[in-house]
Amino acid sequence: MPSYRAPVEDTLFLLNDVLGFHRYDNLPGFSEASPDVVEAVLTEGAKLADTVFAPVNRAGDLEGCTRNADGSVTTPKGFKAAYDAYAQGGWMGLSVPEEFGGQGLPHTLNTAMQEFVSGANLALGMYPGLTQGAIAALLVHGSEDQKRTYVPKMVEGAWTGTMNLTEPHCGTDLGLLKTKAVPNGDGSYSLTGTKIFISAGEHDLSENIVHLVIARIEGAPAGTKGISLFVVPKFLVNADGSLAERNGVSCGSLEHKMGIHGNSTCVMNYDGAKGWLVGEANRGLNAMFVMMNEARLAVGVQGLGQSEVAYQNAVAYAKDRLQGRALTGAKAPDKAADPIIVHPDVRRTLMGIRAFNEAARALVLWTALQSDIVHRSQDAKQRQAADDHMGLMTPVVKGVLTDRGFANAVEAQQMFGGHGYVEEWGMSQFVRDARIAMIYEGANGIQAMDLIGRKLPRDGGRAMMTFLGEVQTFIKDHNETEAMKPFVAPLQAAVNDLQGATMWFMQNAMAKPDNAGAGATDYMHLLGLVAMGYMWARIAKAAQEKAGEPRMEAKLVTGRFFMERILPETALRLARIKTGADSTMALAAEAF
Amino acid sequence: MPSYRAPVEDTLFLLNDVLGFHRYDNLPGFSEASPDVVEAVLTEGAKLADTVFAPVNRAGDLEGCTRNADGSVTTPKGFKAAYDAYAQGGWMGLSVPEEFGGQGLPHTLNTAMQEFVSGANLALGMYPGLTQGAIAALLVHGSEDQKRTYVPKMVEGAWTGTMNLTEPHCGTDLGLLKTKAVPNGDGSYSLTGTKIFISAGEHDLSENIVHLVIARIEGAPAGTKGISLFVVPKFLVNADGSLAERNGVSCGSLEHKMGIHGNSTCVMNYDGAKGWLVGEANRGLNAMFVMMNEARLAVGVQGLGQSEVAYQNAVAYAKDRLQGRALTGAKAPDKAADPIIVHPDVRRTLMGIRAFNEAARALVLWTALQSDIVHRSQDAKQRQAADDHMGLMTPVVKGVLTDRGFANAVEAQQMFGGHGYVEEWGMSQFVRDARIAMIYEGANGIQAMDLIGRKLPRDGGRAMMTFLGEVQTFIKDHNETEAMKPFVAPLQAAVNDLQGATMWFMQNAMAKPDNAGAGATDYMHLLGLVAMGYMWARIAKAAQEKAGEPRMEAKLVTGRFFMERILPETALRLARIKTGADSTMALAAEAF
Repeated sequence: MPSYRAPVEDTLFLLNDVLGFHRYDNLPGFSEASPDVVEAVLTEGAKLADTVFAPVNRAGDLEGCTRNADGSVTTPKGFKAAYDAYAQGGWMGLSVPEEFGGQGLPHTLNTAMQEFVSGANLALGMYPGLTQGAIAALLVHGSEDQKRTYVPKMVEGAWTGTMNLTEPHCGTDLGLLKTKAVPNGDGSYSLTGTKIFISAGEHDLSENIVHLVIARIEGAPAGTKGISLFVVPKFLVNADGSLAERNGVSCGSLEHKMGIHGNSTCVMNYDGAKGWLVGEANRGLNAMFVMMNEARLAVGVQGLGQSEVAYQNAVAYAKDRLQGRALTGAKAPDKAADPIIVHPDVRRTLMGIRAFNEAARALVLWTALQSDIVHRSQDAKQRQAADDHMGLMTPVVKGVLTDRGFANAVEAQQMFGGHGYVEEWGMSQFVRDARIAMIYEGANGIQAMDLIGRKLPRDGGRAMMTFLGEVQTFIKDHNETEAMKPFVAPLQAAVNDLQGATMWFMQNAMAKPDNAGAGATDYMHLLGLVAMGYMWARIAKAAQEKAGEPRMEAKLVTGRFFMERILPETALRLARIKTGADSTMALAAEAF
Repeated sequence: MPSYRAPVEDTLFLLNDVLGFHRYDNLPGFSEASPDVVEAVLTEGAKLADTVFAPVNRAGDLEGCTRNADGSVTTPKGFKAAYDAYAQGGWMGLSVPEEFGGQGLPHTLNTAMQEFVSGANLALGMYPGLTQGAIAALLVHGSEDQKRTYVPKMVEGAWTGTMNLTEPHCGTDLGLLKTKAVPNGDGSYSLTGTKIFISAGEHDLSENIVHLVIARIEGAPAGTKGISLFVVPKFLVNADGSLAERNGVSCGSLEHKMGIHGNSTCVMNYDGAKGWLVGEANRGLNAMFVMMNEARLAVGVQGLGQSEVAYQNAVAYAKDRLQGRALTGAKAPDKAADPIIVHPDVRRTLMGIRAFNEAARALVLWTALQSDIVHRSQDAKQRQAADDHMGLMTPVVKGVLTDRGFANAVEAQQMFGGHGYVEEWGMSQFVRDARIAMIYEGANGIQAMDLIGRKLPRDGGRAMMTFLGEVQTFIKDHNETEAMKPFVAPLQAAVNDLQGATMWFMQNAMAKPDNAGAGATDYMHLLGLVAMGYMWARIAKAAQEKAGEPRMEAKLVTGRFFMERILPETALRLARIKTGADSTMALAAEAF
C-alpha cells in the first residue's frame, strides 16, 4: 500500500529561506500570512492530504466512477467524505477574497496545498481544482450578479465547477467548435452541442455543478473570434440562491481512461441548456484563458505532486528491499543482502527525482508568488514584471514539470522491478495518473508553441530579458564566492545555452517559422532547466547560510547532483534547436 | 481501433542491402534461405501478425486472463486460435534444427518474426517466445533424452515452455532463492517452493507446459553457486511420449498488472513437483543464462515492436486529424483545418520514433546474424568475434531498445491528445504493454551493470575494441565521400564520446567501483546510440547506392534526422559519466 507525506518542511524552507515570503508583507493578505500562520496552514493541509486524501487514492483507481442509468455519476467510495473534509476545512476559498467567503490568503499557499492534494490523490484533487479555476474565471470576467450567485457557493464547496472546451472534432483548435448558443430574448441563451473529456462533468460530490462552456452565438464570426463563454449550471438557480429545476445538460457517458479513474471524465450533452454570457460576446477565449492559465499552473503542480509521491514510495522500497551487495562491500552484513539503496544505479535514479522535485517546487512557489503580485500589488511596474514572469513560466511549469514528473514516476516504478508492474504496489497508478498531466489543459507540444510563438516574442522579448537579467545578476553577485562556484559556474553555462538558443531563433525563425516549431519543445525544456538551475543556485545560497543542519547538507549534495547530471542537458537541447527544421520537415506526408 | 502492418519491406532492405545476408551462404541453413525464400517467409509471417495476432490484441487487453476455481487459466477469446495458427504455420521451429522438427532456417529470420509478433500482439507473442527460449536452453544443456522428450513437442506447439526464476524475496539476486530440490533416488528430484511473475505459467493454449525451474539441491552451497536447473513438466510424460498424471505444480494466482493482460503472469506453487536436472548440478545459472540471453534479445525486440506499432498508429492519426494550420500557410485550404502532420512539433515526434525504429531494427538483425554465426560457423575466429558482439550488444539491445521503445510509445500516444489517454484508441495499451519490457529479464539497470561490470572488461575489453575498430574502419572508408559526410562526421563525434567514456572508466572505476555503477546506465545508452548511429551510416550507404527510389530518399532524410537530433545525446551521456559517483553517493541512506 503506497503512502504519502506532504513536504511541509521543504515548502516552509523554500518560502521562508529561499523566496523571502515575508518580504511581500505589504501585499493584501500577506500580512495575515505570518510565518506561524503559514506553518499552521500547511501543517493542517498536509494532514488532510496525508490522512484523508491519500488513503482513498488506490480505492479510487480500482473502483473508478460509475454512470448510473439515470445519467447520474457515483464517485468511488470515500471520495465524498474526503471532499467534504476539504470543503469544510475552508480549503476551496483559501486565497479567494473574503467578500466572497474566502480567506483572502496568498495564492502561493493555495498552490502549496495543490501540490499536497495532487500528490495524495490526483483524481480527487481535480474536483476542487477545477472549481478553483471556475471561481477565478468568474471573479475576473463574471458580472456582479454572477459572482454573487455562484462564487460563494463554490467557495463553500456546495457547488463545484468545470470547464467545457473540447468537442469530438476540436481540441487544440477551438476555432472549429460547433456548440451553438441561441439568445432566448431574456438575456439567457440556449446551448446545444456535445463536449468531451469534461473532467468532473457529473458526480455526487456537490449539490450543483457550474459549467463554464464555450460556444458560438448564432451568427457569430467563424473561427476563434466568434467564441463566447457561458455559465451553465446543472440546476438553475432561483433569485434567493436556492436550486430550481434541472437544466438541459447531462452526462452522456464516461470515458474509459488509462488513469485518474476516480475522476469522472464525461461526455456532456447540451440540449437547449440555459446559459448566461460571461464577459463580452465573442471574447470567450479571453475569459477562458484566465481559467486555463490558472489550470495550467495547477497541472504543472500535478506533475510535481506525482513525482514526489512516486519518489517517496521508491525511497521506502529501496531502503527495505534486500538484494545484492554494495560494490564497495557489504553494508548490511548481518542480513542476507543489502538494501538496494546501496546500489549506485538506484541512487542515481532517486537523486535524479529528488533533485527535480526540490527545484520544481521552488519554481512553482516562485511563480505562484508572482501570481499574487499580479493580483495584489499596487505597484504597476512590479505587477508588469510579475505578469511577464507568469506569461513566460506558465507553459514551462505546465510542460516541463509534467513531462519530467511523468518520467520520474516511471523511474520510481522501475525501482520496484516486477513489483512495480503489479497494480497492488500502487506504482503503476502513479504512472498512469501522471500521464494525463502531459495532455490536458493543452498538450505539452502546445505549451511549447505558446512559449515560443506568443510568450517569448511578446513586448519585444521583455519577459525573457528580465528573467535573463535576474539570473545574470545572481551569478555576478555570487561568482566570487568559493562555496557557490559549483552552482553558478554550471548555471552560467546553461544560461549561455539559453541565450544561444534565443538568439538562434531571432536570426532563423522569422523567415522560416518551421525553425521555431521544430525547436519549440527543446526550447521549453531548455528554459525549464535554466529556471530550475537558478532555483538550485538560490536554494544553495540559502542552505549555505544555514550550514551545519543535516537537512541543509543534503540540499547542497542534491543541488550539486542537479548541476552535474541534469543541467548539462541544456547543451543537447541547444544542439538540437540549431539543426533547424530541415530534416524534420523534409519528408512529404505520403512518405510516412 | 489500432492497426498494425509488419515492416516486411524495411526488413528485406536491411537484410539484403545493408547487412549482406547472402554473404553468409556458407553457414548451415543460410543456403536454404535464398532471397526468394526469405521474402516468402517474412511475407507469410507478416500476414499472420497483421491479420491473426493484431486483431485480438485489444480484446486480450480488455478481457485478460482468468484463473478458474480448479487452478486452470483461460486466455482471452481468440488467443487459442491465433496460437494454433502460429504453431501450424511452423513458426515455433523456424530456426530449430530439422532433427527436432524445426526448419533449420537462420535465427535472424526468427528474430524478424519476433518483431512482427511483438508489434502485433505482445501478450500473445510471449507464449511462443518463452517456448523458444526453453527450446534453446534444452538444446544446449539438456540430455539427449530430454531433448527428444520435450523439444519436438514444443516445436510442434503442442507443448509450451516457461522459465521460473523469481521468488517473492529474490529477483535480481538469485543467490537468495529458496526453492528446494530433494533427490528421489530414481534420478528425479522433488521440487518445493514458490515462484512469482511466471509468464505463461498456466494457460489453455497447449496440452502440456514445460517449466524450466531453478532451485537449490538439498545441501548445495549457499548463493549462486548452489543453483541448479530443472525441467518440470505440468503433466509427466510416459516413455512413449504420451501424457501421464498431473505433476505437483500449479498456478496459485494471477498477477493484476499494468499491461500485457493477455499473458497469464502466475504465482507458481511447487509442492513436491517431479523434476529432472538439466545440465550439471549447481551450474544452473549457466544453463539458465542461455535462455535468458535469448530472452533478453527477444525483449529488446519487443521494445522495437511496440515502438513500431505505436508509430504506425500515430502516423495514421496525424494524417487524419484536422487541427490548426501549418505555420507556413494552409496546406489543406479546402478543409476546415490542416492534418496535424503539417505541424513541426508533430513531425519532430514522428521522425524521432521513425529514426529510432529503423536503426533499432538494423541493430537487432545485425545482432541476430551474429547469433547465427556463433551457432553455425565453422570458423573459430569468426565465432569468437560474433560471440564478443553478442555479449556486448545483448544488454544494449535489451536495455536501450526497451527504454526508448517505451518512451516512443508515450510520444506516439501524446500525438492523440486526450484521445490517446482514452483506452478505446489503443494507444494506452501500447504504453502499458511496452512498460514491462524495461523490467523483465533483468531490469534495465541490471543490463547496464552487466554491460559495464562483465561484458565490457571481459577478455581485456576485446569486444569493445573490435566494435570500435569496425566503426572506425567504416568511418575511414567513407570519410572522403561527400554524400556520406553528414553521416560519418556525427558518428565520429559519437565514437569519440564512447571512447572517452570507456577510457574514463578504465582510469576511474578500478579504484572506485561506484564510479562505474553511477555511470552504467548512461554508458549503456551511449553505446546504444553509437551502435544505432553506425547502423544509420551503413543504411545511408546502402540507400545512396539505390539513390532515386523515393523510399531511399526517405531513408536518407530519416538518417540525417537521427544524426542531427538523436545522436548528439552521446555528449550529455559522457558529461554525466565524467562527474563520477560523488554527488550520487554522498547522502547517507537516512537522508532520503
